[in-house]
Amino acid sequence: MIFIDACFRKPTPYTPVWMMRQAGRYLPEYMAVREKAGDFLTLCKNPEMAAEVTLQPVDIIGVDAAILFSDILVIPLEMGMALRFEKGEGPIFDDPIRTPEDLARLRGDAAERLTYVYETIRIVRDRLAKDKALIGFTGAPWTLITYMIEGRGTKTYNIVKKLIYTRPEMVHALLRQVTDVIKAYLEKQIEAGVDAVQIFDSWAAALEKPKYLEFSWAYMKEIAAHIKAKYPHIPVIMFPKGIGAYLDDIDGDFDVFGVDWGTPMALAREKLGDRYVLQGNMEPCRLYSKEATRECVEALHEIMQGEGHIFNLGHGILPDVPVENAKYFVDLVHEITRK
Amino acid sequence: MIFIDACFRKPTPYTPVWMMRQAGRYLPEYMAVREKAGDFLTLCKNPEMAAEVTLQPVDIIGVDAAILFSDILVIPLEMGMALRFEKGEGPIFDDPIRTPEDLARLRGDAAERLTYVYETIRIVRDRLAKDKALIGFTGAPWTLITYMIEGRGTKTYNIVKKLIYTRPEMVHALLRQVTDVIKAYLEKQIEAGVDAVQIFDSWAAALEKPKYLEFSWAYMKEIAAHIKAKYPHIPVIMFPKGIGAYLDDIDGDFDVFGVDWGTPMALAREKLGDRYVLQGNMEPCRLYSKEATRECVEALHEIMQGEGHIFNLGHGILPDVPVENAKYFVDLVHEITRK
Repeated sequence: MIFIDACFRKPTPYTPVWMMRQAGRYLPEYMAVREKAGDFLTLCKNPEMAAEVTLQPVDIIGVDAAILFSDILVIPLEMGMALRFEKGEGPIFDDPIRTPEDLARLRGDAAERLTYVYETIRIVRDRLAKDKALIGFTGAPWTLITYMIEGRGTKTYNIVKKLIYTRPEMVHALLRQVTDVIKAYLEKQIEAGVDAVQIFDSWAAALEKPKYLEFSWAYMKEIAAHIKAKYPHIPVIMFPKGIGAYLDDIDGDFDVFGVDWGTPMALAREKLGDRYVLQGNMEPCRLYSKEATRECVEALHEIMQGEGHIFNLGHGILPDVPVENAKYFVDLVHEITRK
Repeated sequence: MIFIDACFRKPTPYTPVWMMRQAGRYLPEYMAVREKAGDFLTLCKNPEMAAEVTLQPVDIIGVDAAILFSDILVIPLEMGMALRFEKGEGPIFDDPIRTPEDLARLRGDAAERLTYVYETIRIVRDRLAKDKALIGFTGAPWTLITYMIEGRGTKTYNIVKKLIYTRPEMVHALLRQVTDVIKAYLEKQIEAGVDAVQIFDSWAAALEKPKYLEFSWAYMKEIAAHIKAKYPHIPVIMFPKGIGAYLDDIDGDFDVFGVDWGTPMALAREKLGDRYVLQGNMEPCRLYSKEATRECVEALHEIMQGEGHIFNLGHGILPDVPVENAKYFVDLVHEITRK
């Protein structure tokens, strides 16, 4: 698989490309399945429909890897937290974690309960072309506990951060519980058939550097090392969004570092390019314009030529991007990088 | 004034300190005036009350500088855009800028109409102790046009960014209009009596580096150079929030660079410390804990000892911080840095 070869810095005929949120609302075919499902969580929990939308971007856009369709919040959900999605507001936990006593009500067997995810993986891997990779994923412990503690979207993260500065031991206890679930969850994804795994730390930029290293990166590294020790042939991709100013302290046993669009690729190459394959990082809004897309693809190719690189966006694709432009991006990457 | 001396790297008996949003909701005295005013915009437009809340943190907390109480959105307001504040949602422009035709309805004489701001400045400067500085401010052109185009809070900035990638000339035309108003506005603030000015670029991190330099930093530099040419004795402070990964490209004619908490101070010192005095950058949530506050003040003092430094938070103080902790922070800075 070209994607897996690129993760391990092996020669490939061209640079592989996929897009975060590629199975998403910009695709009419996705919207059709989503409507059939009724609501988002039902779609996540229905292996047949989840498999269908996972496969769509491979067929329609021509990306080199599929990424499992699911949501990072299925972990807290299966740890026992009631989850609902409110239109215009996003995910809400009505009974968030706030005290040490709340930790006792979380289930440790969440990975065993996520059977619908593994079933989705089996269906996708069965139907996906043999030269295309299937990427599994999880939210990072820090991002998950932020949702679990705040309970809903926040601009300031002041509830979870107040705990970090006043009750750090409680935050670490919750991180420990979630980290253990994640390890088992990724193992089961791999056993079900994913070819690589990505850890999304969407709220990485909510923490100052010393606290980021202590409350997030340390746990991500632990998970990566655990997976690499057991499955050395499975690439591990780390995606901490928005920590371009912390790159001097990034290390650990993983294969690919996902670069968000706020981190200049030249800076990432300088700081990490000799140790990790870099994935990214076109600004998703460039997909509004073919000209802006071409300008960026050419610039990234120039910077990353001869280095370990996987093309991607620097964050998820937006719902109002024309499908035609997404396809243009993928085709252009293949064309420009072909040896 | 100790604050002004520090801006120019002159010797001071201790490192001066102030806090972004120091005239704010964490102070019961502020809440009392705010209640009397009825709503936020009325408070901004009433020079007597605005002056009162501007002076409060100097008296209550002991900071070394007052910052004018106002809002960055008075500029679009006086350019003719109806502005309202919705509880829980923040500022809203019901008639946002979306097309080139919309630009024609913006007034060019906004700086002349902001008389209530200059009157506030005159009252404050008259009542403020002679050894305390009064800081004037403005929003950066980029941050202001983001509000003017999006019309309300956004997570993705996709409306303004779509314009950047598809109609850049229209965005530049709007930036030109706003930049010209800002230059006149800061001049009038200085003529009314402010001792320094700060340019807040709150949404700096919404743009990838090349677009940030083109659509924001270029205009901020133009404003700074304009002010420095006319008023070399007035320090200009730049505060672009969240661009710690872009510091290699920061230059221009200004005195102080405001460091947000997501940019490690050691990195800012390495990249900018020889050219600019650095202001910042304690994580505001550290104010929830005296221990966390002390740890950070000591660490920042260690990093910045012997360099040009003004203590501040790395973003605004939060409403639920105990007043006692804010005072502890200011006293501690004075105590630890006293020579």
